[in-house]
Amino acid sequence: MLPEMLTPFASLVERYRVIFFDAYGVLKNARGVLHGVPELLSWLLRQGKDVYVITNDASRSPAQMAAAYVHPEHGVLIPESKIISSGLLCKDFLRAKVRPGRVAYLGKPSAAFYIESAGLVPVHIGACKSADDLSAFVLLDDEGFDWFRDLNLTLNLMRRVSAPVIVANPDLAYPVNDQEVGLAVGSLAAMLERIVGKSFMRFGKPDTMMFSHAFACAHENVPHLRKSDVLMVGDTLETDILGANTFGLDTALVLSGNTRPEQASMMIQAKGIIPTYLCESVFT
Amino acid sequence: MLPEMLTPFASLVERYRVIFFDAYGVLKNARGVLHGVPELLSWLLRQGKDVYVITNDASRSPAQMAAAYVHPEHGVLIPESKIISSGLLCKDFLRAKVRPGRVAYLGKPSAAFYIESAGLVPVHIGACKSADDLSAFVLLDDEGFDWFRDLNLTLNLMRRVSAPVIVANPDLAYPVNDQEVGLAVGSLAAMLERIVGKSFMRFGKPDTMMFSHAFACAHENVPHLRKSDVLMVGDTLETDILGANTFGLDTALVLSGNTRPEQASMMIQAKGIIPTYLCESVFT
Amino acid sequence: MLPEMLTPFASLVERYRVIFFDAYGVLKNARGVLHGVPELLSWLLRQGKDVYVITNDASRSPAQMAAAYVHPEHGVLIPESKIISSGLLCKDFLRAKVRPGRVAYLGKPSAAFYIESAGLVPVHIGACKSADDLSAFVLLDDEGFDWFRDLNLTLNLMRRVSAPVIVANPDLAYPVNDQEVGLAVGSLAAMLERIVGKSFMRFGKPDTMMFSHAFACAHENVPHLRKSDVLMVGDTLETDILGANTFGLDTALVLSGNTRPEQASMMIQAKGIIPTYLCESVFT
Amino acid sequence: MLPEMLTPFASLVERYRVIFFDAYGVLKNARGVLHGVPELLSWLLRQGKDVYVITNDASRSPAQMAAAYVHPEHGVLIPESKIISSGLLCKDFLRAKVRPGRVAYLGKPSAAFYIESAGLVPVHIGACKSADDLSAFVLLDDEGFDWFRDLNLTLNLMRRVSAPVIVANPDLAYPVNDQEVGLAVGSLAAMLERIVGKSFMRFGKPDTMMFSHAFACAHENVPHLRKSDVLMVGDTLETDILGANTFGLDTALVLSGNTRPEQASMMIQAKGIIPTYLCESVFT
Repeated sequence: MLPEMLTPFASLVERYRVIFFDAYGVLKNARGVLHGVPELLSWLLRQGKDVYVITNDASRSPAQMAAAYVHPEHGVLIPESKIISSGLLCKDFLRAKVRPGRVAYLGKPSAAFYIESAGLVPVHIGACKSADDLSAFVLLDDEGFDWFRDLNLTLNLMRRVSAPVIVANPDLAYPVNDQEVGLAVGSLAAMLERIVGKSFMRFGKPDTMMFSHAFACAHENVPHLRKSDVLMVGDTLETDILGANTFGLDTALVLSGNTRPEQASMMIQAKGIIPTYLCESVFT
Repeated sequence: MLPEMLTPFASLVERYRVIFFDAYGVLKNARGVLHGVPELLSWLLRQGKDVYVITNDASRSPAQMAAAYVHPEHGVLIPESKIISSGLLCKDFLRAKVRPGRVAYLGKPSAAFYIESAGLVPVHIGACKSADDLSAFVLLDDEGFDWFRDLNLTLNLMRRVSAPVIVANPDLAYPVNDQEVGLAVGSLAAMLERIVGKSFMRFGKPDTMMFSHAFACAHENVPHLRKSDVLMVGDTLETDILGANTFGLDTALVLSGNTRPEQASMMIQAKGIIPTYLCESVFT
Repeated sequence: MLPEMLTPFASLVERYRVIFFDAYGVLKNARGVLHGVPELLSWLLRQGKDVYVITNDASRSPAQMAAAYVHPEHGVLIPESKIISSGLLCKDFLRAKVRPGRVAYLGKPSAAFYIESAGLVPVHIGACKSADDLSAFVLLDDEGFDWFRDLNLTLNLMRRVSAPVIVANPDLAYPVNDQEVGLAVGSLAAMLERIVGKSFMRFGKPDTMMFSHAFACAHENVPHLRKSDVLMVGDTLETDILGANTFGLDTALVLSGNTRPEQASMMIQAKGIIPTYLCESVFT
Repeated sequence: MLPEMLTPFASLVERYRVIFFDAYGVLKNARGVLHGVPELLSWLLRQGKDVYVITNDASRSPAQMAAAYVHPEHGVLIPESKIISSGLLCKDFLRAKVRPGRVAYLGKPSAAFYIESAGLVPVHIGACKSADDLSAFVLLDDEGFDWFRDLNLTLNLMRRVSAPVIVANPDLAYPVNDQEVGLAVGSLAAMLERIVGKSFMRFGKPDTMMFSHAFACAHENVPHLRKSDVLMVGDTLETDILGANTFGLDTALVLSGNTRPEQASMMIQAKGIIPTYLCESVFT
């Protein structure tokens, strides 16, 4: 059952009409877009592939994310409309299901975009004097607040008010560089959830909603698109691969992020989450 | 935030164009379709509502399930094509992602429909001599096998072979009658998963894929359908209400199944999963 | 940190004054005491070692367990008083903390010994007509009842009555033979606990109470006994080794039971539970 | 089964020879020893009761903790030798089972006492340049470090080195004042453990080792002491009450800390952890 050996990424491409990429650990790391990515994307577009980014990231707006894929020479490589972030799902939920008013959030100011664009009023958790009129809590990112002070503050506000809690990125960790990872907001959310004792709502992979959303977008561009025409490329078994497997897509696990080359076989075996292909990275 | 009082179900209907119903605890129990359901469905159809069943059930085929909603007088109330079962998602996955061959299953013979219709060969777990050539394990239902013998057998087969394990119904329990519940196959799966140590793949609510599938079907019938035109009616907070909330639908929690009237307020408060409406049942 | 290679068991013995043995996977399997065990125990006694059995087992009384260690030639190898079972701790709790009356149990009739000897009235769960007067539920063993009928019955009784639930063996699985394991009562308990939503009380390793109890017994026989004079020998990292490590004993992991030789290194590494020694078995 | 009404604490005392107190939420809060505690302890001592503190606290040495119970008028109320902290168990483990060398810790400098007194070299996690020679990680307290920087640093060190991880306080939260709680080091540990994927070793209630240790101390002072002569007084169901119940002691749940008066009945019912008595506080 196991993909026994590494497949060159470029050799996979001809089998698919649409490529979904995870961002962190695949196309970028904490320092930005990886060297070589503009050329890769440009080459894919020239081959006629339709390319999307499917990312558990609510730290910035899709417009800000898309800016990373604009290249002086190659131009716009992935437009804002093809960046499907967990923040977007969160925004749709906030607009449709949360009553108008103030929403307390954890994250950088840039993350508040998702609350504002849902027509609600973002309030940084550190500025919440009283919780009495909060419509919701939204956990967007692991940066932009003082962990000790603001996590304790969030815990106590959540104990007092029964507003829904929305986690805009369920990831537990993310790759910072080749060697190190960082605790993601999903870890902080899980810690709070266990004490508060309520069910937080999570948006993002491995839930299939992002894949479904992206597939619907792609379907409008690519006539008669079938699931077997789409390849999901990700670095994390429990989110990228599990979610895309469940949705019915073929998957390529790249070893440039959360899954380290020396552990890949053992982790696939241990977890039983089986990608269609194993690739060293999107470049090799 | 809490729905303070019970809303008469009939009064909700005019606000929506499409109604999604959970089956167990809403329209039926272990003894069959509840008294009054044919009249209710018939009335909804006369009002021009588009009606679907969204059920975590893989014990029988949609055709067999639809037979329960054929009435001598009122005729076909919910056709097979509008019954979206977790078994169907499972079937799509088996067809797309599992290599041809034998698939070991737990469940009644009628549940094997989902394996056969995916073009694979179902083998009852009790008849599995060797696991060496199994393409997958599928846990379909809590009936149709000897728990002591076959759960131990399944555990040992799963330890020997690294084929994917598919759970076609993630529910932990289901209502048998007004007073009693039964252990569902999701509980058995969780018990095995913890020992085997692998990630099983689960199909069904609260994952949003069934809602997305049903919404796409409804969208073909009802022009310009928006999510706010759809009401999900269910008896279980963690599956029906959480999943439909996440997908962005309005929700009605009925107190005729897994959630008992005297506990509803406390459970909504304790879990933080908030339905749009509370109804005693679909009849009142 | 890892014990790099296998240590011959016999070579360890001279460093210790007292040896604690787990039973299943170390001295016996489902078919009985392993070939060679009487000779081994006899040899240890001749060396002046004080020997105890520390077992997560409540399926039979210590007297019945001790009978397995009586040898036609070598006589009584481990007397009843040196067999510390999780059932015994359970009995102490029942006597001290449960109000007199009827106690519903899951297990073989021989397991009811622990309830009777606490001065309470054991009632097999299958014979419980009403739960109204139950003082407690006790889950003793995975055998002696019909899993489908009696686990569903237990679940429904537990939902109706708020009596304490006592699990007399927290193990999830036990080795049946070289190749196969069986689901232990701890797995069944965890499945029920998740649905019932209450905290069950667990007696047995890795909680340190059994080690503390056995150490106190040994202390009476062996003057000035220190924890560093005691070796715990077990086959399971999460119970035998974790518990004895926490209590401060040296530990030997044997590879004749729950931990398979080819997985030992990986599991020690993955779980971070580190035995002092690794031994192929107690014979080698 | 439920203690139906509040019992005056003073009326309980005559039934017991030894009283075990939890500290936080019972005798003190984040601002120090509660008003009235010196008089209460003094009164108990005059009645001839033997009094111990059993605390999941590794933030300071027992000598520092005992200083809180020295009173200008009443003198030493609880001597250092009768303060049994989870830090002490941790120290015993470090001394007996961890190889000599450097031990990385999270906590205030005062917490490093437990590492130093075990004969090891404490190194604040923020000062760890390299993990290569670390003998262990010890998580002692939630204060004394920068959460964002040092929790991420700890995570990455733990991923590189396979040294044992010791959690000297398994509590998830602690009462800061009447209204608010704080995230305890047990919550931080659980967050890291889930990502690192290893089993951390936990010292403290509800494991019974502290009760066993304190009971052995009391046994030396009070001839023929039985477990039924000891009352455990605590504010937390899952640690104080569950642990003491399991060890076989009578228990009084006070509503001055983690368990709020308006929730007590519901939580006892929901969790199934049943104290012998309910008291408003130790003063009433």
